[in-house]
Amino acid sequence: MKHFISMQQLSGETINHILKEAESIRKSPITINKQLFAANLFFEPSTRTKMSFEVAQKKLGLEMLDLHTEASSLVKGESLYDTSKTFEAIGADVLIVRHPSDYWIDEIEEEGQLRIPVINAGSGKEEHPTQCMLDLLTMYQEFGNVKRRKVVIAGDIKHSRVARSNALALEKLGADVFLSAAPGFEDDSLHFPYITMDEAVEIADVVMLLRIQHERHIHKAETFDYLSLYGLTMERAAKMKKHAIIMHPAPINRGVEIDTKLVESKQSRIFKQMENGVYVRMAILMHVLKEWGIINENEINKRQALNII
Amino acid sequence: MKHFISMQQLSGETINHILKEAESIRKSPITINKQLFAANLFFEPSTRTKMSFEVAQKKLGLEMLDLHTEASSLVKGESLYDTSKTFEAIGADVLIVRHPSDYWIDEIEEEGQLRIPVINAGSGKEEHPTQCMLDLLTMYQEFGNVKRRKVVIAGDIKHSRVARSNALALEKLGADVFLSAAPGFEDDSLHFPYITMDEAVEIADVVMLLRIQHERHIHKAETFDYLSLYGLTMERAAKMKKHAIIMHPAPINRGVEIDTKLVESKQSRIFKQMENGVYVRMAILMHVLKEWGIINENEINKRQALNII
Amino acid sequence: MKHFISMQQLSGETINHILKEAESIRKSPITINKQLFAANLFFEPSTRTKMSFEVAQKKLGLEMLDLHTEASSLVKGESLYDTSKTFEAIGADVLIVRHPSDYWIDEIEEEGQLRIPVINAGSGKEEHPTQCMLDLLTMYQEFGNVKRRKVVIAGDIKHSRVARSNALALEKLGADVFLSAAPGFEDDSLHFPYITMDEAVEIADVVMLLRIQHERHIHKAETFDYLSLYGLTMERAAKMKKHAIIMHPAPINRGVEIDTKLVESKQSRIFKQMENGVYVRMAILMHVLKEWGIINENEINKRQALNII
Repeated sequence: MKHFISMQQLSGETINHILKEAESIRKSPITINKQLFAANLFFEPSTRTKMSFEVAQKKLGLEMLDLHTEASSLVKGESLYDTSKTFEAIGADVLIVRHPSDYWIDEIEEEGQLRIPVINAGSGKEEHPTQCMLDLLTMYQEFGNVKRRKVVIAGDIKHSRVARSNALALEKLGADVFLSAAPGFEDDSLHFPYITMDEAVEIADVVMLLRIQHERHIHKAETFDYLSLYGLTMERAAKMKKHAIIMHPAPINRGVEIDTKLVESKQSRIFKQMENGVYVRMAILMHVLKEWGIINENEINKRQALNII
Repeated sequence: MKHFISMQQLSGETINHILKEAESIRKSPITINKQLFAANLFFEPSTRTKMSFEVAQKKLGLEMLDLHTEASSLVKGESLYDTSKTFEAIGADVLIVRHPSDYWIDEIEEEGQLRIPVINAGSGKEEHPTQCMLDLLTMYQEFGNVKRRKVVIAGDIKHSRVARSNALALEKLGADVFLSAAPGFEDDSLHFPYITMDEAVEIADVVMLLRIQHERHIHKAETFDYLSLYGLTMERAAKMKKHAIIMHPAPINRGVEIDTKLVESKQSRIFKQMENGVYVRMAILMHVLKEWGIINENEINKRQALNII
Repeated sequence: MKHFISMQQLSGETINHILKEAESIRKSPITINKQLFAANLFFEPSTRTKMSFEVAQKKLGLEMLDLHTEASSLVKGESLYDTSKTFEAIGADVLIVRHPSDYWIDEIEEEGQLRIPVINAGSGKEEHPTQCMLDLLTMYQEFGNVKRRKVVIAGDIKHSRVARSNALALEKLGADVFLSAAPGFEDDSLHFPYITMDEAVEIADVVMLLRIQHERHIHKAETFDYLSLYGLTMERAAKMKKHAIIMHPAPINRGVEIDTKLVESKQSRIFKQMENGVYVRMAILMHVLKEWGIINENEINKRQALNII
């Protein structure tokens, strides 16, 4: 029984199993046939991950507890372990945690007495495993699997928690990973080849763009044109293979990393990714709840069956 | 298929239809027989409108998504259109938007690709159509309709988003509209006659008071007595017709625009208006969900019927 | 019909009745068989009390309204009475209020026209009756009742809203109450004997620790060791009677009022208290809803029975 913390802890087999479950849930919704509580502990702002988890929880029929971190006793200096134990004590069955630090999970695992599973909804600079899983689901839907598929991850590699976890997971699953970054955005600790965007569009099955934190990194006064030098322009997109797809974790900087006309283009899977986020999170919730013995197969209903009654 | 944005876009027929539905829902509650998601996007503080929508949604059996705007990716500069598309992608079936600007709807309509309806929960200085509808419902309950009824809208006409939309809707529905305002609170772009409060109480079927933003407009140091000059005093209320009613959108400044003893008096419909807000919002939600083909008649249950089972 | 405001208003008989109900709910969960709305109005930060009430409400099947006080019309100067009437008007069946002042209830009771019950979730410095009830439930589970049990309340007596209400309720129920406090933390208005922590561990059936607001009261620069002088050290805990228990309302300052190793020790009931909080709040909600005629016995279901269907 493990917390769902990092892509690196998951075997290829487990990843494939969860993705298969997610796809099955997409086609045929399920609900849990008993009252369970999911507690969302978001210690960092988030729209889409939090909302996506909420929809996943409500679709499964989970009750939701929402810690407003601004108003929490955290301000009184309570440890995350004690907060987690508190939620366990009042009845939470699973915790979803987003945290600015990469190290909060150590605290929870060290104490070693938490009896409910924790799902990482994005931590520090390094891990965002549910985002990675939804990206994988999107590629699996397109290509069946990612073996020998050429995936180019392009953008601010250095400051992205999606880049590292996606690159390593894709490699484990057999994809050929390439990186593309403007000067200063490279991450030297990753061993994948760097290519230009012009090269990328020629070879890629998947162009996975990352958000440029331009409010932080690019001075507006600069006459620097990020899009034309490093982004996905209309011109470059026209050179992509017919079957290739465009991905982006959002929020999008329209006109910075991508031409605004491409966001909802035929090859874009950007809003599809968001939709997949719900199915993947449903599958991950089911996975940990089953693994921890909190639900069993008899406690799962097909929604369709319910509606007939 | 239209978003529910402005009273001016609605025909008298549609208004009457929705009010009739609201009154029917008040008498005999309904629920929706499938899982649908309403997303509340409030980019401005609101207690009563937001809570009223939440009750309406829960009474209909809708799941609710609540964007905490302080903690949203809006801070990262995402457009309202992209936020709306995100909610559509993760499963929202209807959006309820409150926004400080009068122009957000242009952005959503320009892009023209949103596949779910939007309800305006108050925008800028000009529109607050669900408030207008609940005011109308309150008058319809009293008088059957508003034809030839004398309605005096009194208070800070200039800074109120309720005044304009109510005045124009009432006129369209056949009411005789009058305005009453202290110097500086008039809005010259409206063509209705101005009268004093002493005249108002003599002729009105409805005295509709507006909130005075006295923290902004009236200096406390001033020896100026707003209530006795321009408000509804006990003395003035005593001169109202026996069948006439007092309305106020709240929050109330007790002792400023109205004597505190009149707030819960026999002729006051102030808390009745709030109650009606729930029924009107239920009817509006049903209206747009039906119009957009998101629900059909078979997917609506009477709650009574459910309780028998 | 009374609001649930203060332990002092409750007879020993009523307290015993509610505790018995809470214990019965713990063993055999119940739900309410109609749609009712509980509105949580928290004008002060709170994690555990608010979350505990939310779980209690959801377990009972109540719909929940959550006033985000930061974003409320309270900023526009509305009175708590008008806010409460608003929630009543839109459909709330019970209000749960936390407020920094001890006097808000006077305002609500003076007007005398609220038709729904109010539960105090912690007010000012003096009252926190639901916390007191969960503490009592924890002791009842241990000892059957508190008659002649020696309960030592230790810590910052002066600044705690738990101390006073627990001490007086315990006395009413027949316990022998002692206090223990560092210099400056005593409350002279209470008539119970003060003892040292060394004396406390020798005689106590219950050592009830309070949180030290050390961020306010103890200068970090001081070489003062609160734990060794006034807290529950391992050494002191070893001298406790075998059947004696350790309690703490949390959040805990590990290493200040209690040695961190004692928090989850065999004699600690700290997380048990949190669990009991849910059952006690369910019982209190049921108590006021029944007393105010909002539900009757026919509208209560055993969850077990529901699951069989």
